[in-house]
Amino acid sequence: MSTLLRGIIPPLVTPLLDNNTLDTQGLERLIEHVITGGVNGIFILGTTGEAQSLSFNLRIEMIRQTAKILNKRLPLLVGISDTSIVDSIKLSQIAYEVGADAVVSAPPYYFATGQAELAEFYESLIPQLELPVYLYNMPTHTKVMFSPDTIKRIAADNKVIGFKDSSANGCYFQSVMYTMQDHPDFSFFVGPEEMMAEAVLLGAHGGVNGGANIFPKLYVDLYKAASTRNIEEVQRLHQKVMQISSNIYTVGSYGSSYLKGVKCALSVLHICNDFIAAPFNKFGDEQRNKIRAAIESLDL
Amino acid sequence: MSTLLRGIIPPLVTPLLDNNTLDTQGLERLIEHVITGGVNGIFILGTTGEAQSLSFNLRIEMIRQTAKILNKRLPLLVGISDTSIVDSIKLSQIAYEVGADAVVSAPPYYFATGQAELAEFYESLIPQLELPVYLYNMPTHTKVMFSPDTIKRIAADNKVIGFKDSSANGCYFQSVMYTMQDHPDFSFFVGPEEMMAEAVLLGAHGGVNGGANIFPKLYVDLYKAASTRNIEEVQRLHQKVMQISSNIYTVGSYGSSYLKGVKCALSVLHICNDFIAAPFNKFGDEQRNKIRAAIESLDL
Amino acid sequence: MSTLLRGIIPPLVTPLLDNNTLDTQGLERLIEHVITGGVNGIFILGTTGEAQSLSFNLRIEMIRQTAKILNKRLPLLVGISDTSIVDSIKLSQIAYEVGADAVVSAPPYYFATGQAELAEFYESLIPQLELPVYLYNMPTHTKVMFSPDTIKRIAADNKVIGFKDSSANGCYFQSVMYTMQDHPDFSFFVGPEEMMAEAVLLGAHGGVNGGANIFPKLYVDLYKAASTRNIEEVQRLHQKVMQISSNIYTVGSYGSSYLKGVKCALSVLHICNDFIAAPFNKFGDEQRNKIRAAIESLDL
Amino acid sequence: MSTLLRGIIPPLVTPLLDNNTLDTQGLERLIEHVITGGVNGIFILGTTGEAQSLSFNLRIEMIRQTAKILNKRLPLLVGISDTSIVDSIKLSQIAYEVGADAVVSAPPYYFATGQAELAEFYESLIPQLELPVYLYNMPTHTKVMFSPDTIKRIAADNKVIGFKDSSANGCYFQSVMYTMQDHPDFSFFVGPEEMMAEAVLLGAHGGVNGGANIFPKLYVDLYKAASTRNIEEVQRLHQKVMQISSNIYTVGSYGSSYLKGVKCALSVLHICNDFIAAPFNKFGDEQRNKIRAAIESLDL
Repeated sequence: MSTLLRGIIPPLVTPLLDNNTLDTQGLERLIEHVITGGVNGIFILGTTGEAQSLSFNLRIEMIRQTAKILNKRLPLLVGISDTSIVDSIKLSQIAYEVGADAVVSAPPYYFATGQAELAEFYESLIPQLELPVYLYNMPTHTKVMFSPDTIKRIAADNKVIGFKDSSANGCYFQSVMYTMQDHPDFSFFVGPEEMMAEAVLLGAHGGVNGGANIFPKLYVDLYKAASTRNIEEVQRLHQKVMQISSNIYTVGSYGSSYLKGVKCALSVLHICNDFIAAPFNKFGDEQRNKIRAAIESLDL
Repeated sequence: MSTLLRGIIPPLVTPLLDNNTLDTQGLERLIEHVITGGVNGIFILGTTGEAQSLSFNLRIEMIRQTAKILNKRLPLLVGISDTSIVDSIKLSQIAYEVGADAVVSAPPYYFATGQAELAEFYESLIPQLELPVYLYNMPTHTKVMFSPDTIKRIAADNKVIGFKDSSANGCYFQSVMYTMQDHPDFSFFVGPEEMMAEAVLLGAHGGVNGGANIFPKLYVDLYKAASTRNIEEVQRLHQKVMQISSNIYTVGSYGSSYLKGVKCALSVLHICNDFIAAPFNKFGDEQRNKIRAAIESLDL
Repeated sequence: MSTLLRGIIPPLVTPLLDNNTLDTQGLERLIEHVITGGVNGIFILGTTGEAQSLSFNLRIEMIRQTAKILNKRLPLLVGISDTSIVDSIKLSQIAYEVGADAVVSAPPYYFATGQAELAEFYESLIPQLELPVYLYNMPTHTKVMFSPDTIKRIAADNKVIGFKDSSANGCYFQSVMYTMQDHPDFSFFVGPEEMMAEAVLLGAHGGVNGGANIFPKLYVDLYKAASTRNIEEVQRLHQKVMQISSNIYTVGSYGSSYLKGVKCALSVLHICNDFIAAPFNKFGDEQRNKIRAAIESLDL
Repeated sequence: MSTLLRGIIPPLVTPLLDNNTLDTQGLERLIEHVITGGVNGIFILGTTGEAQSLSFNLRIEMIRQTAKILNKRLPLLVGISDTSIVDSIKLSQIAYEVGADAVVSAPPYYFATGQAELAEFYESLIPQLELPVYLYNMPTHTKVMFSPDTIKRIAADNKVIGFKDSSANGCYFQSVMYTMQDHPDFSFFVGPEEMMAEAVLLGAHGGVNGGANIFPKLYVDLYKAASTRNIEEVQRLHQKVMQISSNIYTVGSYGSSYLKGVKCALSVLHICNDFIAAPFNKFGDEQRNKIRAAIESLDL
């Protein structure tokens, strides 16, 4: 990545046949699908990628397969989040070996650290990584939120090139951008697609949005509208994103509805298998029919 | 309010001389200050107004005094949030008697209700109110979040005319707006000023922003820039708001830094007293000097 | 209270006819019922007493009526918890005037304070009270937990004579008792009846248990068994308490099942009305039948 | 384990030289130390064992080394908690191969499941395990609490032989025991040592207490006193446990003070190294001196 990454980076789902087997053909179709949709990079082994539900070996296989299929057509970002610093470094080495462009790291998620311990953890981890690093804020899952000052402290190492925020907290995201305003080469990406347009209008560099697995062009178009300040188009496309959010991510009353909805939609569209790794299960027929109806009513 | 309320409605601080005495002269100066700044209405007895820290009688006095000073120059919104439905109704009656335009209600905040109980509470409360109602979402303080569907259910009563969200959750706010899109006369206001511009760009109707007590014109100008889609001006003024947020609301390491910062700034500007009702205390000299320096560096 | 309070102090429900009317006859029957059951004192206007759901005037009426009916036959403790320090003091004055023995205070519950602010709040409040004070820990409702050191700091004022813990956190309760071991005249009461016996076995002075409204003798007997270290009897009676907890407090899937269950059981036993103040509603026939069956199966 | 496990099972710390190297000599000394102290079994790779902070390979090595050193002198329980079901099964297989007696499993801790999903997860996992299973409740770290009914549902499989609760919620623990009263062969262990004595007095079968790494005999004696209902001795020894809890687990103001305190105390006593895996760091000299003083003042 000689230039800064901008735009839509789908957090790729991990197509699976069962708890320990990749759906490799599905992965191929998915990667071609998002490339065709115009995305600006690919992020694997994030939350949407169910990284933590995969065995360590399967995570390694996912890195290798994706790199092979992608073949450097787009920047590749690899999630290395783990509760063990040793295994995080190992994943990073594999990412480096296969030619990935950057790694993405959320805080350790079993023990919750304080801010000083969090900064020290990254000050210990980062020198052991060979690739640039994005910090990944996901407090509902990791139980800790990077404070703006902690981000600033960690980003004193130039290897830290950006920040992805999935907190959905708009104040917090603005505070981080304000605190980091003297780091012009530092990138800000927003996870929740419902906030992507507004974040870009206020200065963010793009979105790592799960829906871009399913409808990559929509999110790419929305990003472009926002980055060119075409508010009318932003509002029109944003409504589509909200329709997806309201109808595809909310079937059933599960905390996991989002994940199930994304994988089910990809299956309905014949892109990849909808198997979901334990502890979750894929949707049954009734929910699948709702997802199908939701896709049809989108008129995309 | 024959027309819909739009723009900046400061959540007025309650100027105090001690725990049970209004700073009436300060209140007069404050009201003139925000009117001069061009605000579009006034909201009293919200969180920034320390309503819950005031005795019931002092809340009544605040309603009467504000109505008298304001003298219908601007729409007046009155917070009636209480853990007792009986006392909520009593506050609403006083608001009605003094000619207020609407009431604002957050959920009961001692017992946390489920969504069905929350809807039933409002279905019981609203018919007993004589003024239009804004729902007020403040989950950190009330321990419950209005679900979008609950808002839709409560808003089936036309007396419910709008929603103020202080959750800081951008996804949630977008979901509420999307869910309520078939209610064109329903208004959406955002509490956290750090998110006001982006919310308005995406369709919100204004901000109930604490900083508008101190610098009303800044927030009015930012609202206007956003509502006229002048992104360049939005970004310029938004930086000022972020500077206020970062430097005035974060002195000390208190959860109450925001409230202390706003009142201290108003005192530094000779607008009103900085006494804060129990359980909080006003800043000492050291913090006051930081606030003074922060104000000067704003160059407003 | 020339001697230390020990044993079972029921947190009295507030019998109601509607949101703003006491069921005075029910209150009389309830007080006679718990006196007959052998309880060691009465605590009104706690969480089980729905204090926060009552209008300020109704809380005052409840204090006066209870004092009149009780007529000093037992120690009377009055909850004065309020978000306003001024109104807390007012309630305390009324408690003093009617001859109550102590007041009980939980932290302000709208704004969450830090530990230093919490200590300062009590250091400001306590000198303005004319009665001895019990601190009341109820973190699920007040959003703040008294740290053991904060309790020690507040209890430097001898007017603070005890602590009631409703956190259900056994480690915490033990830590408070350990921290306060050099205050031999300080009392420790436990709220959750499921933990009463074990707390007393390890040194606590009694229970403020909601079930003692319904079956006062059971809780008195269990307390006696625990305080005389009759473990066999403790285990036998504790099973009854667990049966009540499992069958009477869990009907429906409401956060408010406990409160509804207690009032419904009292109504089934013809002791008082089961009206519950907003934001909650009493049980319907289906749940009432379950409560009736649960009572019958108790064989008390 | 032909008979039910009872008594004190220390959750063994994992002695480390660095993030990826066992302190094998320290592990040997530690195991001899707790055996000499009279403990009833050993539990490795729990929270106190920093399992999640260890690389997958190091966890395997810890299983093998412990089994070898222990050489079946005591029952061995192995923690298999992981976010990946595949890797949980793998750890369980290794435990089986080395002759461990049971495995211990906490819920997946990245994605938080609902109760139904949690039950389904275990219904999928358990048939794939060759050893008996203890369920491990650790809600602060896993973000989900086993409901009593979920435990009952999972325990329909006889392979599930017990429950360890580290919630510190005494009501909850009693509810689980009450709900499972018709499973006489099901065991209940309590994690927090501050609650061990009272839990055993009310029917629990023992403690998995971190302090038993340092002072095994104290916890064994306290367990014996509680199980023989010698309340006087219980209270005497419980005070020692509270002294440890108050003075050794609270140095510094870290969420990780407990873990740091246990390892530092073991190092002060020349039992094993005090290295702590990332994201935490061991105590410096100042804290170490406090730990040393706390140990001396214990007079054990």
